[in-house]
Amino acid sequence: MSDTSIIRTAESERISHIDYFNIAISVDCVIFGYEEKELKVLLIKSDLKEFSGLWSLLGDLVRPQEDLDAASYRILKERTGLDNVYLEQVHTFGALNRHPSGRVISVAYYSLVDISHHQLRLTHNELHWHKLSDLNELAFDHQLILNKCLERIREQVTEKPLVFNLLPEKFSLRQLQELYQAILDVKLDRRNFRKKIMLKDWLTDLNEMEPDVPHRPGKLYKVKKILKPRI
Amino acid sequence: MSDTSIIRTAESERISHIDYFNIAISVDCVIFGYEEKELKVLLIKSDLKEFSGLWSLLGDLVRPQEDLDAASYRILKERTGLDNVYLEQVHTFGALNRHPSGRVISVAYYSLVDISHHQLRLTHNELHWHKLSDLNELAFDHQLILNKCLERIREQVTEKPLVFNLLPEKFSLRQLQELYQAILDVKLDRRNFRKKIMLKDWLTDLNEMEPDVPHRPGKLYKVKKILKPRI
Repeated sequence: MSDTSIIRTAESERISHIDYFNIAISVDCVIFGYEEKELKVLLIKSDLKEFSGLWSLLGDLVRPQEDLDAASYRILKERTGLDNVYLEQVHTFGALNRHPSGRVISVAYYSLVDISHHQLRLTHNELHWHKLSDLNELAFDHQLILNKCLERIREQVTEKPLVFNLLPEKFSLRQLQELYQAILDVKLDRRNFRKKIMLKDWLTDLNEMEPDVPHRPGKLYKVKKILKPRI
Repeated sequence: MSDTSIIRTAESERISHIDYFNIAISVDCVIFGYEEKELKVLLIKSDLKEFSGLWSLLGDLVRPQEDLDAASYRILKERTGLDNVYLEQVHTFGALNRHPSGRVISVAYYSLVDISHHQLRLTHNELHWHKLSDLNELAFDHQLILNKCLERIREQVTEKPLVFNLLPEKFSLRQLQELYQAILDVKLDRRNFRKKIMLKDWLTDLNEMEPDVPHRPGKLYKVKKILKPRI
């Protein structure tokens, strides 16, 4: 019972750990988009001299009186104008020296949006969609953060019906396969993909065929209403 | 280009945001255990006067020069003696006023251990395994943190072969079902469970029967070597 016999209070804890209250928290938003059969990520030119010329994720410090989740939506809205997307917290990055301004621990959030449905407020002309296949060095540890979010999204899309807001209401299995291929960055076998996706029981067969396509028309499906994705 | 024309540096950012560097980070470890067909969680009596008498997760502040992940292993080792378990980061909790000592943001990690295989260093005699079915009020927002980790573990065990270190090397499907029932807190249908688990292709049939059991002996299985769990 030795160490519980000392009475510790919130106040005495703060005083005895005053050099622990010396950290800032940031949020970094990893916004994935889908366009022209490619997975893209939204990046902004870093305006910090130390990372001059490099692209970075959409991030900012959490304000002293700001809730963590609220900060993620505020930052996304300020940087892009987007305010109708769902952000999911993925991972927190706390390595020493990850930020040149001092100890800054960053919480990463991601979203997956249909680029054509979300008009960015491009007043900031250094904000752009970048193909994932085509990225150069990023500022801070943002490549690490991006990779972690990519890993998470790849895990999630095979388990949960998260991708259907990236497709038209009626879509073919070919369109769905192209979308999965873009996210997973693999070429999927057509027969296997169809078998697996049907096992998920996510789709309703509309008994309609694709109109006006340059290939053999496929059947059209829609996602079951109960599964409408959150993001 | 208006706001990029101002040269911002790491140093000027720190100075202009000095009141942002006022946060402490803690780690809370949610250690789940399995024993006698029950899911349990490791809790310690809070030694903070404000939470006198309440149980809390195993947590501590991250030290000024300590990496986040390293802190989680250090805290678990200090509190329990455990040093051979894998901790997975789950979620970060950053609500205002969640800690009475000031702004403290907490990163939650979880692990799932076989209680009989891990001897706790019970020098701290207020450290105990608690049945999840039998918890009272917890200190801080620890119920919220516990719930989030429980949600994560329930998602993960149905997707990944994470539970096999909680069973003997050779086990029956009955034992495996009991374990899943404890984690998911549901009664599973025997036939459905067996069908689904076989579809996962995680198990090797040993062509042996259970010896000395008070019920009809079941076939014994082991997990495929390639799937040996990380935790």
